[in-house]
Amino acid sequence: MGAIITLTTDFGLADGYVAAVKGVLLDINPEAKLVDVSHMVRPQDIGHGSFILSTTCPYFPRGTIHLVVVDPGVGTEREAIILKKRDAYFVAPDNGVLSDVIADCSSSLVITEDKRVALGGGLEAFALTRPEYWRKPVDPTFHGRDIFAPVAAHLSLGRRPEEMGERLSSLAMLPLACPRREGHTLIGHIRNIDYFGNLITSIRRDDLLSSGRGVNITLHGHTIKGLSRTYAEGDDLLALIGSSGRLEVARRNGSAREYLGAAIGDEVHVRAC
Amino acid sequence: MGAIITLTTDFGLADGYVAAVKGVLLDINPEAKLVDVSHMVRPQDIGHGSFILSTTCPYFPRGTIHLVVVDPGVGTEREAIILKKRDAYFVAPDNGVLSDVIADCSSSLVITEDKRVALGGGLEAFALTRPEYWRKPVDPTFHGRDIFAPVAAHLSLGRRPEEMGERLSSLAMLPLACPRREGHTLIGHIRNIDYFGNLITSIRRDDLLSSGRGVNITLHGHTIKGLSRTYAEGDDLLALIGSSGRLEVARRNGSAREYLGAAIGDEVHVRAC
Amino acid sequence: MGAIITLTTDFGLADGYVAAVKGVLLDINPEAKLVDVSHMVRPQDIGHGSFILSTTCPYFPRGTIHLVVVDPGVGTEREAIILKKRDAYFVAPDNGVLSDVIADCSSSLVITEDKRVALGGGLEAFALTRPEYWRKPVDPTFHGRDIFAPVAAHLSLGRRPEEMGERLSSLAMLPLACPRREGHTLIGHIRNIDYFGNLITSIRRDDLLSSGRGVNITLHGHTIKGLSRTYAEGDDLLALIGSSGRLEVARRNGSAREYLGAAIGDEVHVRAC
Repeated sequence: MGAIITLTTDFGLADGYVAAVKGVLLDINPEAKLVDVSHMVRPQDIGHGSFILSTTCPYFPRGTIHLVVVDPGVGTEREAIILKKRDAYFVAPDNGVLSDVIADCSSSLVITEDKRVALGGGLEAFALTRPEYWRKPVDPTFHGRDIFAPVAAHLSLGRRPEEMGERLSSLAMLPLACPRREGHTLIGHIRNIDYFGNLITSIRRDDLLSSGRGVNITLHGHTIKGLSRTYAEGDDLLALIGSSGRLEVARRNGSAREYLGAAIGDEVHVRAC
Repeated sequence: MGAIITLTTDFGLADGYVAAVKGVLLDINPEAKLVDVSHMVRPQDIGHGSFILSTTCPYFPRGTIHLVVVDPGVGTEREAIILKKRDAYFVAPDNGVLSDVIADCSSSLVITEDKRVALGGGLEAFALTRPEYWRKPVDPTFHGRDIFAPVAAHLSLGRRPEEMGERLSSLAMLPLACPRREGHTLIGHIRNIDYFGNLITSIRRDDLLSSGRGVNITLHGHTIKGLSRTYAEGDDLLALIGSSGRLEVARRNGSAREYLGAAIGDEVHVRAC
Repeated sequence: MGAIITLTTDFGLADGYVAAVKGVLLDINPEAKLVDVSHMVRPQDIGHGSFILSTTCPYFPRGTIHLVVVDPGVGTEREAIILKKRDAYFVAPDNGVLSDVIADCSSSLVITEDKRVALGGGLEAFALTRPEYWRKPVDPTFHGRDIFAPVAAHLSLGRRPEEMGERLSSLAMLPLACPRREGHTLIGHIRNIDYFGNLITSIRRDDLLSSGRGVNITLHGHTIKGLSRTYAEGDDLLALIGSSGRLEVARRNGSAREYLGAAIGDEVHVRAC
């Protein structure tokens, strides 16, 4: 069956890891349609992988299976899981790499003290506990190839998550740096810096709604007055709501990253004016 | 229908933009065959994208659809278009990114004062004016995902360009640095530098035909005497007609870019000898 | 027919070379399923390409065709070949880029003085001598597009190797730096450095078997005591048997390459303790 399986990893593009995973997928389901999301997630950066994934999965057809391998704890006690969210499936380690996908789904998340989130609201999860669906022998350093890929391939053939694992009631959740308010200032962070050098923040369109266009955005000592509509408008340094629905800082015909020396994690302040 | 859709963008490979476009394409036509041309066009470099595209599209089967998104003016008044060239389709912004494709097609181009070229000679173009074929809402920063991709997908399902837009009589054309003659010297430019560090120029085989092998090629203060047939022949620094039919400067077992410190846009002089 | 064709090249990802090859493949067999192994083999580094390829081909289904173009001698007298190994096919230049694939297959290789290996043990090879299966005209600088790709596509349509070439009795073999023993020390080399900065050596699990976990691994003046099971165990700098069955040196949550300043080709010493 020609199901779509997407791949999001921190494997890079030079080595053979991605192709090994694809070989395993196609060996089990030769009809699977494989689509790369990114293999250039920053090595072992779970939050980066979580963000990239969440900006792409909304655009795939119902039934798409997302294979996600950013897995610094491979071979340790963290679980391997399937998350079912409406009509999409995510096969991933239970290490928080699905945090943005989970957060998109629910605005009323209850995060427990051990940094887990109780499931509900259309989310179901299963721990992969049935080795008969895995590749043997399982290499303790490459579950992407030996556990996640075969399970994703079996899902794509119509196998149900319940058959391959045991239901979980919670999943690991990163302490996502949600924007917070301090007095009249909304404080967010840079979540990603793209190929153009645009700085994509954790601040969403809705967080700014009350302020409209009358906002000042400050980062790295620079203040940008108001929002532009496109990258071609506004001053050298401009801010806008980007295609992922988040506040971005960009430089016209250039790289805001280079201009500001910005990095993922840097703070961004927004004030109504 | 299993039509081929190629993708040429300046989105880079780390972010989720390419996958978002592919998700939209496959949501509309699950049978489309997607082939990446390049996502590493230099950011916002329309001429670079135009060149890369033109070196690959001749090798695809009839009916292939080329989706091209190098679009620094996204969201502004530049048109989104379909170009039909013989049996291939190009879906792109009307900003000159199809210049090499257009130039390949006709040696008698008439470029107007406002840097547009009148169509003819088997070329037809249409401005995308029918929002019912777009993704809604259209994000002003990502027409690749919200306009170009859905239109390309509908083309791949057999929809005709005429149904999705209005006929245009001219398209934007870059002032392509065609080789020019000054006395006995032919002056061209470096159009691309590839992964090997080979310098691919704007000078075509035909431009050299009269000279045969008796040419001296000068750039960055070095002169190369005559043309080699392969990268393994000739001296350290060598010149040959490369696989795109253009004059290239290469270094045997090394990088001409590094050796010469060359960059895209640099001049190359050819003299018969 | 929906055969799988994988691609391993040193073409890089920015230029149009990979897409030109894919266009030729799909023009001949529109149903071929194309899977990228790597296009970031170090330019003209035959040994690097050989290694990357050999770590991925075992995971593909029977009948997979592997197109391999790391070809610094393109256009010279080196042969273009098909290697048949059990149920997989390799289309490549005869320059040693299949050395690891060949070595995996046989522990009793006889390498002749002119650096060739006699075939046997289930290996069959054919020199591509039948131009009617090539693209015309053949460009002397791009056999990947004009010879290897069309031959791979015809293979994928069911054409037999015998029809496209003449049987060979030997193939080029790199002097693969197999681990050697000096006294009680096993000396290997770094064969690849991956995106994580892990150093993958030429020393295989079997080479270490007699030593068990009681080994000291020394490189760049650092000694690592014993093997870890996963990347999350052990000290800052750790050694383990990685997913390709080879000894690796890694840094927990970091890059061993950066930490040690290591490079491909560097020596690694192993001593029982």
